[in-house]
Amino acid sequence: MHLPAELSAGQFQLVYNMLSLAIAAMIASFAFFVMARQQLTAKYRPAMVMSSLVVLIAAYHYWRIFNSWDAAYALSASGSYAASGKPFNDAYRYVDWLLTVPLLVAELVAVLALPKGHRGPLMAKLVIASALMIMLGYPGEISSETGPRIGWGLASTVPFLYILWVLYSELGKAAADNSGETKVLLRNTQLLLLATWGFYPIAYLLPVLGISGASSVIAVQIGYSISDIAAKCGYGVMIYAIARAKMSAEGVEEVAS
Amino acid sequence: MHLPAELSAGQFQLVYNMLSLAIAAMIASFAFFVMARQQLTAKYRPAMVMSSLVVLIAAYHYWRIFNSWDAAYALSASGSYAASGKPFNDAYRYVDWLLTVPLLVAELVAVLALPKGHRGPLMAKLVIASALMIMLGYPGEISSETGPRIGWGLASTVPFLYILWVLYSELGKAAADNSGETKVLLRNTQLLLLATWGFYPIAYLLPVLGISGASSVIAVQIGYSISDIAAKCGYGVMIYAIARAKMSAEGVEEVAS
Repeated sequence: MHLPAELSAGQFQLVYNMLSLAIAAMIASFAFFVMARQQLTAKYRPAMVMSSLVVLIAAYHYWRIFNSWDAAYALSASGSYAASGKPFNDAYRYVDWLLTVPLLVAELVAVLALPKGHRGPLMAKLVIASALMIMLGYPGEISSETGPRIGWGLASTVPFLYILWVLYSELGKAAADNSGETKVLLRNTQLLLLATWGFYPIAYLLPVLGISGASSVIAVQIGYSISDIAAKCGYGVMIYAIARAKMSAEGVEEVAS
Repeated sequence: MHLPAELSAGQFQLVYNMLSLAIAAMIASFAFFVMARQQLTAKYRPAMVMSSLVVLIAAYHYWRIFNSWDAAYALSASGSYAASGKPFNDAYRYVDWLLTVPLLVAELVAVLALPKGHRGPLMAKLVIASALMIMLGYPGEISSETGPRIGWGLASTVPFLYILWVLYSELGKAAADNSGETKVLLRNTQLLLLATWGFYPIAYLLPVLGISGASSVIAVQIGYSISDIAAKCGYGVMIYAIARAKMSAEGVEEVAS
């Protein structure tokens, strides 16, 4: 991403503090998912393991992104922040998504606890499509021209829509098999997925929409961070709630750990 | 916060060592709560999980605050410490509270082990009010003028009083259902809450009360640190004691872990 030459102290610190908040949220979520796993029966544990890996990977990348942001600007004598010349590394986010998005979709399949023969092919389709989605988006993200950004963005949208279609149709079927609390939670998870994943293409397109300079860079960083917290931490907590609701529906209240 | 241009070696080191003490207390508390969780029956474990997340998040932020304090001053040839020009980042405390205060109030609700239908709405009210309290306080904290500091402080006091009122009335009812040791512990937790939370508004108002310069900065940092240790570590230990007392009253002495 092309960085503006100068940011006000408030602008620089807003991104700085948001990235730090994301680190804290990812670390705490990792501890939570590791402990929460022990409150679940064996068939729901793989979903929590995946949740914990997602936020561990994200904690590492947010640490790197934070340091990269800090190094990209230097406090000037006037109290504003001037670009130091060191590049701000966008690739950390894409490497993060390349590893975590396949895990996130697999997590949802895992918590549905589908029959074994059905689960494998579904996971394979989703994992391949989500890796493809990230890889096709990256050349557009690093391009400063409008044409390639839109072209690669459109290419990346194809696997994105495919994932949403598969998850919605499968989740719809799975929800129909459940009742009460579980059904409501599964529907809420669909909404969370749509709300958080829907933000990424918007942030991606901001530079194309003519929103440029400092506002664009800040909006993209804040937006991606909030989306990541919702899509990783918030989503993992909902997956945990679904697993607990399903255990409750199965008449299992407590786990001997 | 506006930093004084110069601190004596004793003043600088007092804050420096207090921040380090807080890091050690948070790390040790994290280990304690993770282990203590396994001495509790399943229904009291969520309270310990929340305790452990609170101190893990605080350990991260105290690490950052310590580094920020260290970078904000440089040892001068005369043996005193001169402001380096790098800002001391106050936002770490607010980001910490934004994440931990909702967990702290949820923790108290969790240890009461209320019926499910009653617990959810109570937690939701408290979590929203506590997030609101922190967010309304921040604009006042970073303002160097008296007017905004008092205005935002008063706005933040509204959700603060609401939380205290809800916790007191609910804790009062919960305490009435208990007897002996649990009752005493619940009352002590009320007192600890009032004593520790009561300090934050005092520290917040110090600059308004005319206590300025080095004394004010040092008093605020030492005060916030002691309050955080009491409100996070001490409070978590009391929550553990309440859970153990309730287990004892229920006739459960040991947990197979």
